[in-house]
Amino acid sequence: MSSLSSDAHLMACAHQLAIQSRFLTDPNPRVGCVLVDASGAVLGQGRTQPVGGPHAEVMALRDAAAQGHSVAGATAYVTLEPCSHHGRTGPCCDALIAAGIRRVVASIADPNPLVAGQGFERLRAAGVEVEIGPLAEEARELNIGFFSRMVRKTPWVRLKAAASLDGKTALENGTSQWITSEAARTDGHAWRARAGAILTGVGTVIEDDPRLDVRLVETTRQPPLVIVDSHLQTPPTARLFEIERMVWIYAATRDESKAAALEARGATVSCMANSQGKVDLAAMLRDLAAREVNELHVEAGHKLNGSLMREGLVDELLLYVAPKFIGDGLGIASQPHAGGALTSLGDALALEFRTFDAVGPDLRIVARVAGRHRF
Amino acid sequence: MSSLSSDAHLMACAHQLAIQSRFLTDPNPRVGCVLVDASGAVLGQGRTQPVGGPHAEVMALRDAAAQGHSVAGATAYVTLEPCSHHGRTGPCCDALIAAGIRRVVASIADPNPLVAGQGFERLRAAGVEVEIGPLAEEARELNIGFFSRMVRKTPWVRLKAAASLDGKTALENGTSQWITSEAARTDGHAWRARAGAILTGVGTVIEDDPRLDVRLVETTRQPPLVIVDSHLQTPPTARLFEIERMVWIYAATRDESKAAALEARGATVSCMANSQGKVDLAAMLRDLAAREVNELHVEAGHKLNGSLMREGLVDELLLYVAPKFIGDGLGIASQPHAGGALTSLGDALALEFRTFDAVGPDLRIVARVAGRHRF
Repeated sequence: MSSLSSDAHLMACAHQLAIQSRFLTDPNPRVGCVLVDASGAVLGQGRTQPVGGPHAEVMALRDAAAQGHSVAGATAYVTLEPCSHHGRTGPCCDALIAAGIRRVVASIADPNPLVAGQGFERLRAAGVEVEIGPLAEEARELNIGFFSRMVRKTPWVRLKAAASLDGKTALENGTSQWITSEAARTDGHAWRARAGAILTGVGTVIEDDPRLDVRLVETTRQPPLVIVDSHLQTPPTARLFEIERMVWIYAATRDESKAAALEARGATVSCMANSQGKVDLAAMLRDLAAREVNELHVEAGHKLNGSLMREGLVDELLLYVAPKFIGDGLGIASQPHAGGALTSLGDALALEFRTFDAVGPDLRIVARVAGRHRF
Repeated sequence: MSSLSSDAHLMACAHQLAIQSRFLTDPNPRVGCVLVDASGAVLGQGRTQPVGGPHAEVMALRDAAAQGHSVAGATAYVTLEPCSHHGRTGPCCDALIAAGIRRVVASIADPNPLVAGQGFERLRAAGVEVEIGPLAEEARELNIGFFSRMVRKTPWVRLKAAASLDGKTALENGTSQWITSEAARTDGHAWRARAGAILTGVGTVIEDDPRLDVRLVETTRQPPLVIVDSHLQTPPTARLFEIERMVWIYAATRDESKAAALEARGATVSCMANSQGKVDLAAMLRDLAAREVNELHVEAGHKLNGSLMREGLVDELLLYVAPKFIGDGLGIASQPHAGGALTSLGDALALEFRTFDAVGPDLRIVARVAGRHRF
């Protein structure tokens, strides 16, 4: 096996470990690490643990030790630059150096502009050989929300919708349960599970009284629920409060008695108004990034979806399309363009398809607003 | 090679030949034939030629003869029951028997209720061993329009549309050129090329002045163009008359001077009204079947699309989805349900996805009205 193909293969193993941690590590990035000796034999592997727990590198070192393997002179394949700072845990660089690792192959540098490259420098200063690059794109994609928060200071906003083949998300009378299949809804819960937070609007809360938690897939964490609720109309009796997780309500005006009733249910109420007396959505996103939300999973009605699109805040669409034709009904997003109805096709919001997949009888489309992932 | 795998492989070769004839044979079915000797060596192959020309079996016999091969004792793999009647050509059964073919493996019986099974009987009566079944589903699918015309006495109706991801086929001002890419439009021409006829409405003729011919893929035939035009408003100056092909106009009332002007351009004008004074679409489809249209390719506006859906006449949707978000605009089909806007999701038109494919930057979806292919 050539060194090149070996590098690619071993980094693919590290990437698989990173993928396995996608419901687990928030707000930390999803990282995997594989330690191998000079012959290419795997000595230990690990993935980043829940926040406050060890990172992937330390897990791999512990795995090797538990198996009685010495890692002196070994190579570490890791999907992100090892950290060099004392955060919630000690620096992984120091642990790798102390263990005698001779070479580190990393997919990509840490996106945090304040720390990027410092881990590599620290390793090199200690005489460790450093190579950067294999599966860089995959590592970044898996952590697109972490990269977004670090670089853009705002979460990666993924708007989920379930529609008929003619683009309708509800009947004219509001009925939307269920357009798509149980299989699609289960798949949707996997996307909720990987999110840093789930966002909805007060209209959906009042009309559907949804729980908006992760039920249909296994998870050890429930993402916080964010509600856009300009006038604090969320009923304190809503079912969403039955779930053990944080609830963050963003309002445009603070009504003390309503806020107190919601805070009594455990919600955090923030006031952030724009000039139209509605919630300032861009400011809310910056606030969510400050609360360490990487990926924001939006499940809202056509009005809030339209507002997010109109203000240019949506990065990605996660669309489940059912093999149905509804005809008259509600669309995915109302008034998505700032200038009103388009008069030229060139002004349509340009997307790029990423994936199409059958999910049960339905079709799942992931599409990105063109160019949004380049930051 | 076992006989079973050999049968499957050789029938797959015959099926490939049939596929190659899909722009060619209308109104005859698309059929392929492979002749092999006892060792499995191919002696000759053929596919059905344009109407009036030889069928696949005769082409394969000629191919074997041209190569100097005797086919006495050979096996014929053919994707449809060999014909036993004198149509535009002599019966293939007789040709196979006369050539000394010992065994015929056929995918499926001829769907014409008047002749189904007679070819097999004739072969058996002459001592030819007959087996039926391999690739039956594929053979039927490739000839879904021929099967539809023979069994249901109506064409297979495939409605083509190009829409944005939010299901819009045009802006509110009617602009629809172009929502999808050049690649999608070229792919669309391949579907036109295989159609027995292309159908549109007079609204599209007046608004877009389209040619609706096959240009972007190579073909030796231009399908007839059908126009639904209740009041004979098609302008005799329309560009569609510039193409060398048949134009069939269906009206609800016959205005002699208008009809004469259109007939002077080569059109055939038929009058077929329903009780609302519009074209009786179901009767028109039966008439198109009588004119030997197998697959009817619909490229129309949202109103005619809606009428066809509302009357339950659509079998399949061929939908190109562009990675764009339009917002306010025109949909694929207006008022597709006979009872008006739905009040229950259970009443939505149920489809089944068949394929999803990337075509350039766009997505092509083929979906069927649930159960429509079972006849």
